[in-house]
Amino acid sequence: MVRFKISWKTHEKRMDNVRRELEKNRCKAMILFSPLRIFYLTGYTVLSTERPIALILPVEDEPALFVPKLEEEHSKFRVPQIKKRIVYFEYPGIEHPMKLLAKGIKEMGLHEKTIAADAPGYPGVMGYKGPKLTELLPSLQLKLLGDIIDRMRLIKDEEELNLIRESAKWGNLAHRLLQDYVAPGLIETEIAIKASYEASIAMIKALGPEFDPGVSMPARAGFRGQIGAYSAYPHMLASNVTIKEGDVLVTGAGARIGGYNSELERTMIVGKPTEKQKKYFNIMVKAQRAALEAFKPGVKCSDVNKAAFKVFKEEGVPMNFILHRVGHGIGLEGHEPPWVEDGDETLMKPGMVFSCEPGIYIPGFAGFRHSDTVIILEDGVEVVTFYPRDLESLTILT
Amino acid sequence: MVRFKISWKTHEKRMDNVRRELEKNRCKAMILFSPLRIFYLTGYTVLSTERPIALILPVEDEPALFVPKLEEEHSKFRVPQIKKRIVYFEYPGIEHPMKLLAKGIKEMGLHEKTIAADAPGYPGVMGYKGPKLTELLPSLQLKLLGDIIDRMRLIKDEEELNLIRESAKWGNLAHRLLQDYVAPGLIETEIAIKASYEASIAMIKALGPEFDPGVSMPARAGFRGQIGAYSAYPHMLASNVTIKEGDVLVTGAGARIGGYNSELERTMIVGKPTEKQKKYFNIMVKAQRAALEAFKPGVKCSDVNKAAFKVFKEEGVPMNFILHRVGHGIGLEGHEPPWVEDGDETLMKPGMVFSCEPGIYIPGFAGFRHSDTVIILEDGVEVVTFYPRDLESLTILT
Repeated sequence: MVRFKISWKTHEKRMDNVRRELEKNRCKAMILFSPLRIFYLTGYTVLSTERPIALILPVEDEPALFVPKLEEEHSKFRVPQIKKRIVYFEYPGIEHPMKLLAKGIKEMGLHEKTIAADAPGYPGVMGYKGPKLTELLPSLQLKLLGDIIDRMRLIKDEEELNLIRESAKWGNLAHRLLQDYVAPGLIETEIAIKASYEASIAMIKALGPEFDPGVSMPARAGFRGQIGAYSAYPHMLASNVTIKEGDVLVTGAGARIGGYNSELERTMIVGKPTEKQKKYFNIMVKAQRAALEAFKPGVKCSDVNKAAFKVFKEEGVPMNFILHRVGHGIGLEGHEPPWVEDGDETLMKPGMVFSCEPGIYIPGFAGFRHSDTVIILEDGVEVVTFYPRDLESLTILT
Repeated sequence: MVRFKISWKTHEKRMDNVRRELEKNRCKAMILFSPLRIFYLTGYTVLSTERPIALILPVEDEPALFVPKLEEEHSKFRVPQIKKRIVYFEYPGIEHPMKLLAKGIKEMGLHEKTIAADAPGYPGVMGYKGPKLTELLPSLQLKLLGDIIDRMRLIKDEEELNLIRESAKWGNLAHRLLQDYVAPGLIETEIAIKASYEASIAMIKALGPEFDPGVSMPARAGFRGQIGAYSAYPHMLASNVTIKEGDVLVTGAGARIGGYNSELERTMIVGKPTEKQKKYFNIMVKAQRAALEAFKPGVKCSDVNKAAFKVFKEEGVPMNFILHRVGHGIGLEGHEPPWVEDGDETLMKPGMVFSCEPGIYIPGFAGFRHSDTVIILEDGVEVVTFYPRDLESLTILT
């Protein structure tokens, strides 16, 4: 039984879905250069560098991996189910690695066919340079159809949802420890890494050898610099700031499992909240509740965005305190489509997963934002993050 | 005085260098979409997401940033020297953000000129989709010249070299702690995060408020799964494996300061080394010494690669144990050009910085690799990483 990653059966199903789409588009194969799309289809994880990699998925044959020699044995260990490999020694190489890929495509009899790809060639990661496939194979007809996979990723199946649910538990632990360790006089990192470390070790030991973390700190919580007046910058960066009495803190926590993520963010206050802090905290909570209640199958993403913005307007929050939309899709990536924003009229469908995080940011004073992870179900929604949202629970007594 | 980041004066110099290159290429401005290239020119750090950002650098005017509203105040905090901002509310937006960028370009009088860019439009980060600039501004002549900046990055100036030197010290601390904490029975993460945490806190407290870490763990050391037989996979991933007596461990350490990095890797042995372990450890050390001695101004990158491979050949190491080249450039990115490989005949110049890391990998047994960071000087080289390389120092007594 596979508990903590996507099963090979599901990967096979995903590849078969792609094959059906390729047939509809009259393509004989697909070549993927994006490590994330390759991971989605096969479960193969690789450190993404200037060394090009690719997956070739023929409609009527088994998939093949194009990898550097240093990934030959490692990729067999990761995805033994894939038997065929095109292996080059190194980048940049006396002969460019893409020439070997072109040769492999020729040997598979695909070089004069119409095939799909997610890019004209390997992208410019870490200074990589190289030719487009069609420069090497002039008879090749290439259609850019990476969207086939991106569309599949919008709707998560039960295996994916269970990984996101499991992620939420360990994010919750990391956040609990983060809150426990907050104290005036500490630099944010002292708290964040201690909490992340302990939650990660607990996660690794609790889930056991069946769980392959892939990263050294699978569970994490922190502040990313959102401390005191800096909490008014939603995308602040980790800093050297010392936490003090009276600070508003905006947190972030999550855990990575089988490649999937959840998102948990809370606004916390160090010491007795002031009237002004209470006011904006409570409006934010009200706006988030309105948005959480608006999520359901069949509604437009933009309507959930409007539900929170309506509260801001009713409560008289100036528009210059609102710096972003209500949320985004989440899954293999921390942000992914669809977008909970006025410009996205995508209808919410069962299996979609979103963050819900309306925020208020008062320049020079503080920011206020909770974020929760929401799964759209057949008959409603499931909020997978379950950390307390009320002011009393999020006040740090000093 | 600025000690721990690149000074604004240097950023101005870099922008002026780009302006001169633009004039040579008869371009009136450059538009950069790559966050790393924007950081290199201006020092502006941003979380890279689906929300497009850009820097517009006119030849005869001040630079302008194109940012989402959530970055408006934050970008003023980061780069107050840049006065002009084109700000959109959100992605995807009712009107696509790129339309606002196109309008800004028009208002700057650049829409019918020849301008340079590093990409036709913002790249597909986190599911971003959008038009190319030329689709929105049909009279625009766009030349793809991102290479202008990439070429500048090859040669580091004194400010950059000093950041890399400073990085090496904190990587050294993280590695020292890592080695101190290794013990049979521990999972790699228990050791790696403890060492990284303590080194990061020491670094933050030692360098003080002038140091802006930007990430929560600026100094780090770990194994990335390279434990026992898994050390034969050079790009293994962090795992759930418990360290045991007799294991060969391959480590990695570094620290991030002002955006710059160094690389320190060592092979360690838990308990008394076996004859076979000693044999390959010593050949690897000999090959690395040969490569370190081959680095100097004026030599070809490929020649340094050959120096290490010559030792492997002389010592009778089978070619199937050699999985990669000797090294890569390092600076803002962990890997960057030039490449210490047979296919790269770039001449080494003062200010270039490289990793030096020939490795031997025996399937099912172990991998052996040290990595050091080397600066090419006017009259020789400087090895900035200074952790011991000999077997005795790297044996973990149990």
